Amino acid sequence: MTGWVVWIDGGVRFGALLGENIQPYRGDVFGAPEPEGAPIAAASVTLVSPVRPRQFIGLWNNFHALAEKQGNAKTDFPLYFLKAPSSIIGPGAPITAPAEGKMLYEGELGIVIGRDQSIFGYTIVDDVTARDTLPADPSFPQWARAKSFRSFGPVGPCIVTEIDLSTARVQVALNGRVRQDYALSDMIIPPARIVELVGREVALEPGDVIACGTSLGALPMRPGMEVSVSIDGIGTLTNPVAGGAAPA
Amino acid sequence: MTGWVVWIDGGVRFGALLGENIQPYRGDVFGAPEPEGAPIAAASVTLVSPVRPRQFIGLWNNFHALAEKQGNAKTDFPLYFLKAPSSIIGPGAPITAPAEGKMLYEGELGIVIGRDQSIFGYTIVDDVTARDTLPADPSFPQWARAKSFRSFGPVGPCIVTEIDLSTARVQVALNGRVRQDYALSDMIIPPARIVELVGREVALEPGDVIACGTSLGALPMRPGMEVSVSIDGIGTLTNPVAGGAAPA
Repeated sequence: MTGWVVWIDGGVRFGALLGENIQPYRGDVFGAPEPEGAPIAAASVTLVSPVRPRQFIGLWNNFHALAEKQGNAKTDFPLYFLKAPSSIIGPGAPITAPAEGKMLYEGELGIVIGRDQSIFGYTIVDDVTARDTLPADPSFPQWARAKSFRSFGPVGPCIVTEIDLSTARVQVALNGRVRQDYALSDMIIPPARIVELVGREVALEPGDVIACGTSLGALPMRPGMEVSVSIDGIGTLTNPVAGGAAPA
Repeated sequence: MTGWVVWIDGGVRFGALLGENIQPYRGDVFGAPEPEGAPIAAASVTLVSPVRPRQFIGLWNNFHALAEKQGNAKTDFPLYFLKAPSSIIGPGAPITAPAEGKMLYEGELGIVIGRDQSIFGYTIVDDVTARDTLPADPSFPQWARAKSFRSFGPVGPCIVTEIDLSTARVQVALNGRVRQDYALSDMIIPPARIVELVGREVALEPGDVIACGTSLGALPMRPGMEVSVSIDGIGTLTNPVAGGAAPA
C-alpha cells in the first residue's frame, strides 16, 4: 500500500492507493476500516485532502539549519501557531494569493493524529504563508492570520502509516526547479516528542494535523507558477498558483 | 425564546430555551430547524457548549479602555489568534489549571457564524489564558499554546440571535465578586465589521466562533474558585476551577 487517499463521489470516500489503483474502504480509517467493492483506477478520481482536522497545528523553528541561519535559539518545547482548517485544499487545487503582499511556500512533513493521541501516519503539508501580513502590525505578530487565508493549506496526496525519518528528504520544486531540499533527520524536536509534548496540554483528536516546520529555502510564489512538495515514502503534492500566465 | 441550547441525551440534542423549559428541535440549527416533541424541563438536562466550531478565533486589543491602559495603538483590522476548538467546555464543567504558571479568565462576547459567513447569533466565551506561558519564549509569543489547554474554552450557556450592542455589558464575577464590568459599546471593531474583514481572508463556516476580545480586569484564577461571565440578553456562563478547596 502506498497510502490512504480521499475523494468525493456522491459523498466522502476513502481507500488505499495501490500503485495505479485504489481499493475503496468503509468505516473509520482511524479504527478498523474494511475493504468495500472492487479496486478503481486512481486516475478516475480527483483526490482531496486525505484528512479534515479540527486542529491544524504548525511548528516554527524546528530545523537546525534554519535556526542557525536565522540565529534562533533551540527550544525544548514545540513553538507553534494554529492554522485555520478551512484553509485546507487538496492536490491540484489552486493556491490563491492574498490581496496584498507576497506569499511563500513552505514544504513540511505533516503528522496525522490517530486514536488516543497516537501518531496515525504522515502526509505532506505546504504551509503557505502571507509573508508581509505576518509582521504588518508592530504590536502583534499575526501568525494565525498569515497562515489561514483560503487555500493556504495544501495537504496530501495521501497518508502513509510509516516513514523512515532517518533518510527521508523534503524537496520543494517551483516551476520544476528545486528550491527546498532538506533532511527530516535535521529536525530539532521529532514527531513522537512533538505529539507527546503538545498532547500534554491540548486534546489532540483523530485527524488533527501537526506540520513539523520548514527549513531553508522558502520563497515567494507568483500567479501562474506551480509548486510541488515531495517527501520520500509519501509522494508529491502539487498545486498551481491561481491567476496570471506561467512566466516565460 | 431565550436562546439555543445543546445537551447530550443518547446523542447531541438541541432546542430553544423558553424560561424553565426547553423545546427540542431537529434539523440544522443554522438552516430551518423544526420543533420535535414536547418541551422538557431545563433542569433535567446538563447543557454542553451550544456550538462546536472548527475555527475558534479570539481577538486581541479590541476595547478602547484596555488599549488605552496598555498603550496599544488602535488598528483597523482585527488582530487575532486561533484557539484550539478541543479546549471548549460547557457551562458548569471544570477549568483545569496548567502544570505551571497562572491562568486568567477573560470574559468576552462570542460571535457565532451562520450560513454564508453571516452572523447567526451571540454567546458567551471565557477566553482562559495561561498568562505565564504566553511570553515564556523570548523569540516567539505563544498565543495559540497559551489559549488552547484542555478546558480553556468555556462557551455557553446559549446562543441568542439578537443582542443590543449599545447597552449590553459584560460582567465577570470571581467567587461572586465582580472583577470585570465593561460595555460592549466600547468595542473598537464591532461584530459585523469583524466578520466582514476576517471573512475576506478566512473561509468562515457555520458554527465558527469569534471571541471579540476582553477589556479591563482579567485576573488569575486559583483551584477551588468559581468564575461567572454574564452578558445582558444572553445569560451567565459559570465554571468551577478544578482542584483544591475554596479559599477561606
